[in-house]
Amino acid sequence: MGLIVQKYGGSSVADADGLKRVAARIVATKKAGNQVVVVVSAMGDTTDELIDLANQVTPLPNGRELDMLLTAGERISMALLAMAISNLGHEARSFTGSQAGVLTTSAHGKARIIDVKPSRITEAINEGAIAIVAGFQGINQDTKDVTTLGRGGSDTTAVALAAALEADVCEIYTDVDGVYSADPRAVPSARKLKTVTYEEMLELAASGAKVLHLRCVEYARRYDLPIHVRSSFSNQEGTWVVKDHPEGASDMEQAIIAGIAHDKSEAKVTIVGVPDRTGVAARIFQTIADADINIDMIVQNVSAAATGLTDISFTLPKAEGAEATQILNDIKGEIGFQSLQYDDQIGKLSLVGAGMRSHPGVTATFFACLSEAGINIEMISTSEIRISIICRVEDLEKGVKAAHSAFELDVDGEAVVYGGTGR
Amino acid sequence: MGLIVQKYGGSSVADADGLKRVAARIVATKKAGNQVVVVVSAMGDTTDELIDLANQVTPLPNGRELDMLLTAGERISMALLAMAISNLGHEARSFTGSQAGVLTTSAHGKARIIDVKPSRITEAINEGAIAIVAGFQGINQDTKDVTTLGRGGSDTTAVALAAALEADVCEIYTDVDGVYSADPRAVPSARKLKTVTYEEMLELAASGAKVLHLRCVEYARRYDLPIHVRSSFSNQEGTWVVKDHPEGASDMEQAIIAGIAHDKSEAKVTIVGVPDRTGVAARIFQTIADADINIDMIVQNVSAAATGLTDISFTLPKAEGAEATQILNDIKGEIGFQSLQYDDQIGKLSLVGAGMRSHPGVTATFFACLSEAGINIEMISTSEIRISIICRVEDLEKGVKAAHSAFELDVDGEAVVYGGTGR
Repeated sequence: MGLIVQKYGGSSVADADGLKRVAARIVATKKAGNQVVVVVSAMGDTTDELIDLANQVTPLPNGRELDMLLTAGERISMALLAMAISNLGHEARSFTGSQAGVLTTSAHGKARIIDVKPSRITEAINEGAIAIVAGFQGINQDTKDVTTLGRGGSDTTAVALAAALEADVCEIYTDVDGVYSADPRAVPSARKLKTVTYEEMLELAASGAKVLHLRCVEYARRYDLPIHVRSSFSNQEGTWVVKDHPEGASDMEQAIIAGIAHDKSEAKVTIVGVPDRTGVAARIFQTIADADINIDMIVQNVSAAATGLTDISFTLPKAEGAEATQILNDIKGEIGFQSLQYDDQIGKLSLVGAGMRSHPGVTATFFACLSEAGINIEMISTSEIRISIICRVEDLEKGVKAAHSAFELDVDGEAVVYGGTGR
Repeated sequence: MGLIVQKYGGSSVADADGLKRVAARIVATKKAGNQVVVVVSAMGDTTDELIDLANQVTPLPNGRELDMLLTAGERISMALLAMAISNLGHEARSFTGSQAGVLTTSAHGKARIIDVKPSRITEAINEGAIAIVAGFQGINQDTKDVTTLGRGGSDTTAVALAAALEADVCEIYTDVDGVYSADPRAVPSARKLKTVTYEEMLELAASGAKVLHLRCVEYARRYDLPIHVRSSFSNQEGTWVVKDHPEGASDMEQAIIAGIAHDKSEAKVTIVGVPDRTGVAARIFQTIADADINIDMIVQNVSAAATGLTDISFTLPKAEGAEATQILNDIKGEIGFQSLQYDDQIGKLSLVGAGMRSHPGVTATFFACLSEAGINIEMISTSEIRISIICRVEDLEKGVKAAHSAFELDVDGEAVVYGGTGR
């Protein structure tokens, strides 16, 4: 007897058949003697269809109203899922983010969960019902306005709810059957990981692996909550995201590199001719941060002694590129830099593995294999368990394959990928 | 400067163009110096589409979950309408039934409004914003579950909200340009009424006229709130529903009969061979009432002296026919009646007019015209300002036309009807 939180993405509940299949799986979990809380995303392409509708009405939808609109998506899927479960003879009650006590900040479209007060969920499961909760949404604790958490938000809802309920596990059902050593779409020989640590998963997510959202892993680590990433289309075990790799795992499981992530969604901004004075870099990045733009890698060259000028490059999501360059141009006079360069033809390749700590040769092997593949490294950034490089976007997949082979991660046979992506 | 509540039905906001047209009308009202609160239904066929989805998942959707599902419809339309208004440069904020303080009973699918506490709406309009409120929905004040008010519920939301806000007028925008002396689809020469009293409108609505919902008129009468029924497709004045016809109205406006309603949605149940004892009829109708079935006309024949048995007939909505006959069969042994007859091929024809009070000849004229048209009267029921008869359903429209002519209600030219119906 346990308490299990399950999260199903939009591709798992894309139509009536999907809803029925998911309902059967939930009922099976309940029949096995567990209390079950389910977090569900909007059906299939509902969110995109609602955004299309908004764009037909206005080019710039108001954030509060866009959140009100989009949250209709989960309202539909959760009510239908509850009905499908009732139809199998089990009681199910659906709850909006607000009803489930998901309290957030006020940033419409990218709100953060501040607290979860799931008293109605606890009441429902203690009365023997299955609770269905709308993913991706919450309520601004000050104004009581409806908010959404942004892409990947349903995963975060599930983990935050699981933590608040002190669940035994949070099962994230998705369209792949686990976390792979590389994106199976790019590397057909990628292998499924049995376990991955929170740290590794955080680095993988931050580096572009799309299986789990960064914030959801942060939440799980903070509360030491095991996540089981698996497919809703099969009954196979997936990947467990846990604190440590299990003792006595095989050599294969103890590989130096857990996985290789790649990311084509970033762009590079270079600020040319920045005066090398104290406080200038701080002023630049504070301005960027104030606009709520997330920057990733930063490189600053040594300044030329003759001019006292330096160049600063940083990477950021392409979607925020226009805003960032606008903001920087606004302070051009104040900072006194010469020009801005914007490059959206870059790719990021990252090696992640807790084993790096005790294997100093990883960097050398990595750079050597890229060199052999004829790939030029433009920027480098490292953490204790990650090395990331920036290269031309057209070289990216070649680099992933080269590194995957160099670190002996390949397995025979191809990985299983199921269509679509959820949010 | 006034406070105006406007209600737009689903056919007025069926697509992006409809939303933009309605937004322009709302902004014009605001620019004329009014505070504006808007109640909106779900877009076009959204509600039917959601019901279809539910039926794909289960044959018997749970009431709580069906309400959760259907309320997604207004959430979509109200958010889009708020965006369309913002796009015209005016601030608009959308509110769910719950956020607007619409407190209801717990009867899912047919909840009644108990109270409206619109503090968030007042705050919004006092800050200069236009408030958009989801029609048709509220929140169970005990359990905090989402409820819906049933068909026509958005009209009731609008009037209840207007009453709570002490609005100057509640404008109901619909697909016809007012209340007619008969359904223009059946009687092309029907004429639009400039005014109709609450009493007349109540009788018309109860008799099958679909322009306004019964409960919404009851609400308006209780708070003496003027309703202006008009079309969202034109700028013409519609029909004012008020306490009294204005002094000095023309003879035309002082017609004895305000309108003729007809209704094909009822069926007749006859309980044959009921023992003519005290309390038997009460037992029968209490049983029906306990099941929340609304009966309309009741006729009991004089009992035959030889047998001490009588027949009782009553009419009720066809949709509730199966349940009513089931319930009556369950108490057959206890009551001791002989058999049940069920007839769903009936039609109801009603004359309504405050002028009847001072014109005793109305009944005679009415029956004479039906007789001339060869229509047999099966049941009769009257109130102070209404006469209703039951006839064969195939005679119904012939009867409406005959009565419309007999009371000289015809005008030259055809009435204007715009497509679709809202809720």
